[in-house]
Amino acid sequence: MSILLRGAAVLTVNGDFEVLTGADVVVDGQNISYVGPGKEWHREFDRIIDCSNKMIVPGFVNAHGHAAMTLLRSYADDVPLMFWLEKRIWPVEARLKREDVYWGTMLAILEMLKSGTTTFTDMYFFMDQVAEAAEECGIRAVLSRGLVGVDHMADRGLEESEQFVRNWQGRSQGRITTMLGPHAPYTCPPAYLKRVMELQAKLSVPVQIHLSETLDEVHHIKSEYGVSPPELLKDTGLFALPVLAAHCVHLSDDDMDILREYNVRVAHNPGSNLKLGSGIAPVPDLLARGITVGLGTDGAASNNNLDMLEEVRLAALIHKGSRMDPTVVTAGQALAMATRESAKAIFLPDVGTIAEGMKADLVLYDLNRPHLVPQHDLAAHLVYAAQPGDISLVMVDGRVLVENGQAVTLDEEKILFQAQQRALHLVSGGKE
Amino acid sequence: MSILLRGAAVLTVNGDFEVLTGADVVVDGQNISYVGPGKEWHREFDRIIDCSNKMIVPGFVNAHGHAAMTLLRSYADDVPLMFWLEKRIWPVEARLKREDVYWGTMLAILEMLKSGTTTFTDMYFFMDQVAEAAEECGIRAVLSRGLVGVDHMADRGLEESEQFVRNWQGRSQGRITTMLGPHAPYTCPPAYLKRVMELQAKLSVPVQIHLSETLDEVHHIKSEYGVSPPELLKDTGLFALPVLAAHCVHLSDDDMDILREYNVRVAHNPGSNLKLGSGIAPVPDLLARGITVGLGTDGAASNNNLDMLEEVRLAALIHKGSRMDPTVVTAGQALAMATRESAKAIFLPDVGTIAEGMKADLVLYDLNRPHLVPQHDLAAHLVYAAQPGDISLVMVDGRVLVENGQAVTLDEEKILFQAQQRALHLVSGGKE
Repeated sequence: MSILLRGAAVLTVNGDFEVLTGADVVVDGQNISYVGPGKEWHREFDRIIDCSNKMIVPGFVNAHGHAAMTLLRSYADDVPLMFWLEKRIWPVEARLKREDVYWGTMLAILEMLKSGTTTFTDMYFFMDQVAEAAEECGIRAVLSRGLVGVDHMADRGLEESEQFVRNWQGRSQGRITTMLGPHAPYTCPPAYLKRVMELQAKLSVPVQIHLSETLDEVHHIKSEYGVSPPELLKDTGLFALPVLAAHCVHLSDDDMDILREYNVRVAHNPGSNLKLGSGIAPVPDLLARGITVGLGTDGAASNNNLDMLEEVRLAALIHKGSRMDPTVVTAGQALAMATRESAKAIFLPDVGTIAEGMKADLVLYDLNRPHLVPQHDLAAHLVYAAQPGDISLVMVDGRVLVENGQAVTLDEEKILFQAQQRALHLVSGGKE
Repeated sequence: MSILLRGAAVLTVNGDFEVLTGADVVVDGQNISYVGPGKEWHREFDRIIDCSNKMIVPGFVNAHGHAAMTLLRSYADDVPLMFWLEKRIWPVEARLKREDVYWGTMLAILEMLKSGTTTFTDMYFFMDQVAEAAEECGIRAVLSRGLVGVDHMADRGLEESEQFVRNWQGRSQGRITTMLGPHAPYTCPPAYLKRVMELQAKLSVPVQIHLSETLDEVHHIKSEYGVSPPELLKDTGLFALPVLAAHCVHLSDDDMDILREYNVRVAHNPGSNLKLGSGIAPVPDLLARGITVGLGTDGAASNNNLDMLEEVRLAALIHKGSRMDPTVVTAGQALAMATRESAKAIFLPDVGTIAEGMKADLVLYDLNRPHLVPQHDLAAHLVYAAQPGDISLVMVDGRVLVENGQAVTLDEEKILFQAQQRALHLVSGGKE
């Protein structure tokens, strides 16, 4: 399939601030084959899309989340973290069946596609169902089975992880890739992390882990091991592998130096960190060190949506406010975090920018909106003013998945119905 | 005109968390005449609107802004505050003509109506044009001419203010009310504020002022007068009048006690305060004192939109994050701030809740959206997950102004064209 996107404004995210106008973008198969000035084309296209008064932006790459937790959206809010986990989230998660995870993930993918996310990262369980949902919908996905080393599932988790990676790595023409997902330092003691590292040596996929999300976690690890969570992972040897660390809210200067030294990628989740009262990550300091920082939504239970535009805006706003400095985390940096840097963070080298040879994962925004007029600066518009409702088309891997507000590959009515029914059943105690 | 809204979920905002389901709302003329269980009606209605799977929420009340600054949306971002003001904003504002303010305000009203705002507050100049725009569009407005006491416009501002209040107070069946708008303690010295107070004694309208927006302002007032900005206004006598104070980012405990003692209302502007690096207002402490705190967007030049849903979300999120406490500013409190409390803050006693006898200013949200499924908690959904694109109908003063995404009373294409042309002309130096 060949598609010409004609006469667009393009935020390439090649270099933070590059904005093309009146540009053409050509997609051949899965890839972008041309980005540049509009011109007369002496070749055939399967489809030509008029992009006048529209803006092309790389699809958002959601670098951290738990998709099926959409079923617990707005189920428990404004309560202390341990109450939230122990009294509300974990009891319901213990009742989840594989079909629940499938439909919760379908709901998440539907929401993400419609809000301009073309790649998502997941760490959960019943991962075959997550992968099936991603395969069916056409979205790009980087998936890992969550591993906890301190309960009866410790061994089974490793077995299922190996199985999952062997089954799914590179499937759907490379649209689905996998990682290993040890949950966190406080749920995966060093001895268990060593077993994860042995498995990684066999499978050669990257690792993702939650890290230094709360002050409690930092205090707990320090009192248990005498070192900070990043020091513990360094000492264990995990950081010798390719690692994505989610959250990283509470880091010392030494911790940040460790992340830089070992090229650990960070997934910043501003919405979830704010909502759970975890704190505000030191993103300007991470960026100043040249550390790769991507953006994620975390699960919908602690957000309560999967809208990356909101995360982009929060990432550009909260550090300015908390540091009383309007120059930190510019619009261009925030946009790069949500696209190019997120892709780097989850080890996808050919995703996240609009450039020749890159995967054709892109989103078209309609600029003919009151909140996007006048047009002094399109990058600032996207970061500070755009809405998911401005999206007119979403493409993943060269394939149009959303057009005119409709998800092309999905039965929206069925997904909403299934998700609603299953969620109510779950929170009512799972009784038939 | 009588309208029956049948079978809705209703967030009444009578009491923070009241949610009715399967409820009917009746509008007769400008007012709500019934809110309660759905029932058989033995009377005629001019119109019946089916609200199944829809949610009725009081229209947002934007408690602080400068509407026509939409023309400078995304014109200057991520730069230090004084550079922003002196090098970018003020030079362009000096070139504004009355037609620019008219079209900039029309653009703002269009954006606000489509994102569920039914009342806006304004402090700017060429206020006749602002009032005309509000009158034409059907939105509710509380308007004040901005007053600066330290330049050649000091006297003329007072004269224009008196004229404006006498012309417009209570116009359009009460839809338009007025205030006096001394800009800030640092631009209105006590002697000038005394003249504002004399004018207020003649006109009996409330006063709005920017207060303690930045640390620089606090330091400046302290070095000039030896007291904090709230102490200065108290000493000047201004706080004996009904006063709305915008921003209030940097307050001591004593300052907050003063605001409580004098029943000063506060307009919290989280988006603008973050974006300009002003800081994070002590909202939980204000709420704990029982001070009335409303929500505002400030101008689009420092936001960069007029979407109150974003302010609601920021108000509910940033205090949790900066205080590391997920229980502060609950979803219900944030929603109340944007509606009932904002209305109180701008002295509109019959606006801001869905209740019998109140003005029929309401918004209908379509719940049939992936990001609003499942429906465990509709207040949390509105605050943490809803999007402007979910709005299916907006009513002000009993009149439908937005339906199916279209502004009924406005020529959208003309507004976007005029605003775009005038903005480009302005920033190009105003040359013909």
